[in-house]
Amino acid sequence: MEDIEIAQKNVLEPIEKIATKIGLTAAEIEPYGHDKAKLPLEALAKLNQNPAGKLVLVTSINPTPAGEGKSTVLVGLADALRQRQQRAVIALREPSLGPVMGMKGGATGGGYAQVVPMADINLHFTGDMHALTATVNTLAALIDNHIHQGNALNIDPKRIIWKRALDINDRALREIVIGLGKPANGEMRSDGFDITVASEMMAVLCLATSLTDLKKRISEILIGYTYDREPIYVKDLKVEGALTVLLKDAIKPNLVQTLEHTPAIIHGGPFANIAHGCNSILATEAAIHAGDYAITEAGFGADLGAEKFLDIVTPKLSKAPDVIVVVATIRALKYNGGQALADLKDESVSALEHGYENLHRHLQNMQRYGIPVVVSINHFASDTDQELAVLQDLISQEGLASAITDVHEKGGRGGLALADLVMAAAEDETPDYERLYADDETVTIKIRTIAQKIYGAADIELTSQAKQQLRQINKHGWNNLPICIAKTQYSFSDQPKLLGAPTGFTLTIRELIPKLGAGFIVAMAGSVLTMPGLPKHPAAEKIDIDADGKISGLF
Amino acid sequence: MEDIEIAQKNVLEPIEKIATKIGLTAAEIEPYGHDKAKLPLEALAKLNQNPAGKLVLVTSINPTPAGEGKSTVLVGLADALRQRQQRAVIALREPSLGPVMGMKGGATGGGYAQVVPMADINLHFTGDMHALTATVNTLAALIDNHIHQGNALNIDPKRIIWKRALDINDRALREIVIGLGKPANGEMRSDGFDITVASEMMAVLCLATSLTDLKKRISEILIGYTYDREPIYVKDLKVEGALTVLLKDAIKPNLVQTLEHTPAIIHGGPFANIAHGCNSILATEAAIHAGDYAITEAGFGADLGAEKFLDIVTPKLSKAPDVIVVVATIRALKYNGGQALADLKDESVSALEHGYENLHRHLQNMQRYGIPVVVSINHFASDTDQELAVLQDLISQEGLASAITDVHEKGGRGGLALADLVMAAAEDETPDYERLYADDETVTIKIRTIAQKIYGAADIELTSQAKQQLRQINKHGWNNLPICIAKTQYSFSDQPKLLGAPTGFTLTIRELIPKLGAGFIVAMAGSVLTMPGLPKHPAAEKIDIDADGKISGLF
Repeated sequence: MEDIEIAQKNVLEPIEKIATKIGLTAAEIEPYGHDKAKLPLEALAKLNQNPAGKLVLVTSINPTPAGEGKSTVLVGLADALRQRQQRAVIALREPSLGPVMGMKGGATGGGYAQVVPMADINLHFTGDMHALTATVNTLAALIDNHIHQGNALNIDPKRIIWKRALDINDRALREIVIGLGKPANGEMRSDGFDITVASEMMAVLCLATSLTDLKKRISEILIGYTYDREPIYVKDLKVEGALTVLLKDAIKPNLVQTLEHTPAIIHGGPFANIAHGCNSILATEAAIHAGDYAITEAGFGADLGAEKFLDIVTPKLSKAPDVIVVVATIRALKYNGGQALADLKDESVSALEHGYENLHRHLQNMQRYGIPVVVSINHFASDTDQELAVLQDLISQEGLASAITDVHEKGGRGGLALADLVMAAAEDETPDYERLYADDETVTIKIRTIAQKIYGAADIELTSQAKQQLRQINKHGWNNLPICIAKTQYSFSDQPKLLGAPTGFTLTIRELIPKLGAGFIVAMAGSVLTMPGLPKHPAAEKIDIDADGKISGLF
Repeated sequence: MEDIEIAQKNVLEPIEKIATKIGLTAAEIEPYGHDKAKLPLEALAKLNQNPAGKLVLVTSINPTPAGEGKSTVLVGLADALRQRQQRAVIALREPSLGPVMGMKGGATGGGYAQVVPMADINLHFTGDMHALTATVNTLAALIDNHIHQGNALNIDPKRIIWKRALDINDRALREIVIGLGKPANGEMRSDGFDITVASEMMAVLCLATSLTDLKKRISEILIGYTYDREPIYVKDLKVEGALTVLLKDAIKPNLVQTLEHTPAIIHGGPFANIAHGCNSILATEAAIHAGDYAITEAGFGADLGAEKFLDIVTPKLSKAPDVIVVVATIRALKYNGGQALADLKDESVSALEHGYENLHRHLQNMQRYGIPVVVSINHFASDTDQELAVLQDLISQEGLASAITDVHEKGGRGGLALADLVMAAAEDETPDYERLYADDETVTIKIRTIAQKIYGAADIELTSQAKQQLRQINKHGWNNLPICIAKTQYSFSDQPKLLGAPTGFTLTIRELIPKLGAGFIVAMAGSVLTMPGLPKHPAAEKIDIDADGKISGLF
């Protein structure tokens, strides 16, 4: 059965009933239809008066074409905790619309471990992405208009770094020339569109802790440089108020439910390479204060998303994670061990043992932060008993506990063993969270620390462009910011085909881009596509709707 | 007091209570927050079982910089009818976000005759504009991707007529080049962005009568031509289902209220020059069947919006208007009579008498359709008793009734005299609606009919480009569609500075553009800007929000 069919057969609880599970009344939430709601800032303030629950971070090995199911495990774990009478609340990223029209595969879990209404969440949801798109493009229009109207700020059109954005996979908009035609059409210059989730505005929204903080972050966004190479910020255009107004609803986290009616707060979805890849701070804080367990995740593998959650996001949260769950699959580990994609259903203990080094390094990395780690072995039908036994043995040799999860087929019931491990880990120890680096170290040291300790690199190398950018960053005093490395998600290294646990490589930093609104420096290790394309046969060709509004072909 | 301050001081009724005024329960609407809702298609079906009420079309003289206040009168009239114990329901267009960031002035009425929540309606509202933007750009991305992926349909990149869209005033995107850079970035070609409300997709949404009709209209959109000059439609790409899915919520009309708690259905907002300028058919039908009086309007002056409402929209409605209200102001008529903008507060009976010819022709035009016409003299503080008496006398010499309205200052109370006129006109006569032209006449005859009978033109002239396009239209059998003339709103003619009631001119048709999804042929009489720009000091510089979310500077 397709995911959307499972989702459509499910009878949702009214969103007001879900709200009561986190202690909010119907009047305290803003309904969007009968099964979605926004949590206004007043509701967040009320929640924050509650004691903090435990925070669980779900992450995974490096993604492979075999599929890992991180979001699915997250949903199943929360449902399982509810079955164990624990008040679990999910904090998850919201999906981007672009890929929905391109490739099969959403970000709302799968099978019997989904957040619903699945179609709405994957389409326009409550409009957050669209509000961001409008904000990004309003700023761009204001910049070009300023230049056209006399350019009092002396902005160099060749040094504008603020790009436009659409929540669409549109390869044709990656590199464009704008302002062609008549004089009234403005200054001609080269430009490009990113997908909205790759825009700094998304990261800004997700890291903002209040409307005031949001406006301050927006005002500090670096949009380009003058002809004299002096930085120009949004505040120089005096439009941070208007741009914040455009995000007045997008800042409010969204409340939905799982198929088993567990509350899920879904809010924000920055890319995990060019940005930090975690849902909003407001959503995570709400989940922390809305029950016994807040379950959140971070994009891609633990080298990207979890590292950023722990080094960039956690210092801004009221507490660090109490438990980290690392999701792995036999299939993906065998793929890491060299088995071909087509043969992954065939048993191969040797490929599994070889590929285990990928999981091993992620487990070592996560333990470095001083937080208890458990492993979810996400079960597939092709897994053999022998393979499962070998994997569990390898994990226990590290002194770690693992649970086989089968939430895709069984929902929360398939996650009970994992829930028990998580509860034990959360009670057993007082986490002694330790960051990987301090913000006041030099940019080079911060990058080298991540590259060596997390990626296993021998060293880092900056291109001449990156070195020049580093001088600018130091000159302007932007060096005291955390580092957000943009790199391929498929490998620990900067080379997508280097699977397993590569060592000895040099991580090349091509560019250093200050994101002053988000408050981090992006270090580009490789070319990261910030505007995806559509495949030869886009998913859009299969998606349909009947006369009664029933959708088909959406995954 | 600013409009937004008046709106913020008002205590709104819960949207469920507004719904009961049109016979719908809380379960039958889809709330968006506590003061907005969408009307699902099931709710529309329920409403359509009610008997039809009277339909009132509000239109105006040609717009001037002096301001006419058509939307304000519409809101005040509805509130006045409610004060007269008539169940009045508003059907209004929704505003575009782009101009909100550019120029002061919204589309939600003003003073004490507003629809609320004003800020929400003027910003993202319930996301309809953004859903349209996403749909327009998804289609564009699919077209360019098809060409990039082998171009099986043989689409000529130089003959693509489907443009991208944003709901932003962005002059720099009017003419662009896309697909620059690497081969993976697709085919390089010239392109441009329209403002979303100028896209055919908006007209398609507003003219659709069901999900099935929407999908059919989308499938028939002409997107370009092959290298062999054969037309290419959306259905050739097989993506009409996916695009309809993107509009599954946008097709549902939105319910809000006036400051006096009169139900207002606000839905769709196509440009009144490049498109037909009326709110959606679904919204108007809902209003017709939701009470005693449905009050709707059409964009710009009666030569543009009302002509299109009567010739394009009305044949698709269950009934024709019962009454037409033409809004005029002393100030605007004096401006039409040659008085300078700066001197409009000075009494000038001669300028008024001279400028009256503009109102006179609109009144004659509207009577041509066989529908009773009344006049609203929208009162300004600078109007003198002498001027008001002269104007009322001129109108009564035509055998028509007029009422002085003061709804901006007094709300519904300021529209009681107009409400009485409307009620009398609606009861007095059985309208004998007659269209201006039949669809099966030739394109040239249809255009000439509008130009001569409505605009007062001596004749029309087609450029050689328009003549060539006409041959294509006839060849492909697209000639049996109604005509949507794109022309300046400031004059009956195609020259913006020809005020009053010009005659003897030749209307030049530069282009004929088939809009096969919308189902009309756009005849371009002059250059119409489909992507506005921002002024030197955009409104965005004044808009702000405080820590508690209170907005200021929005009008």
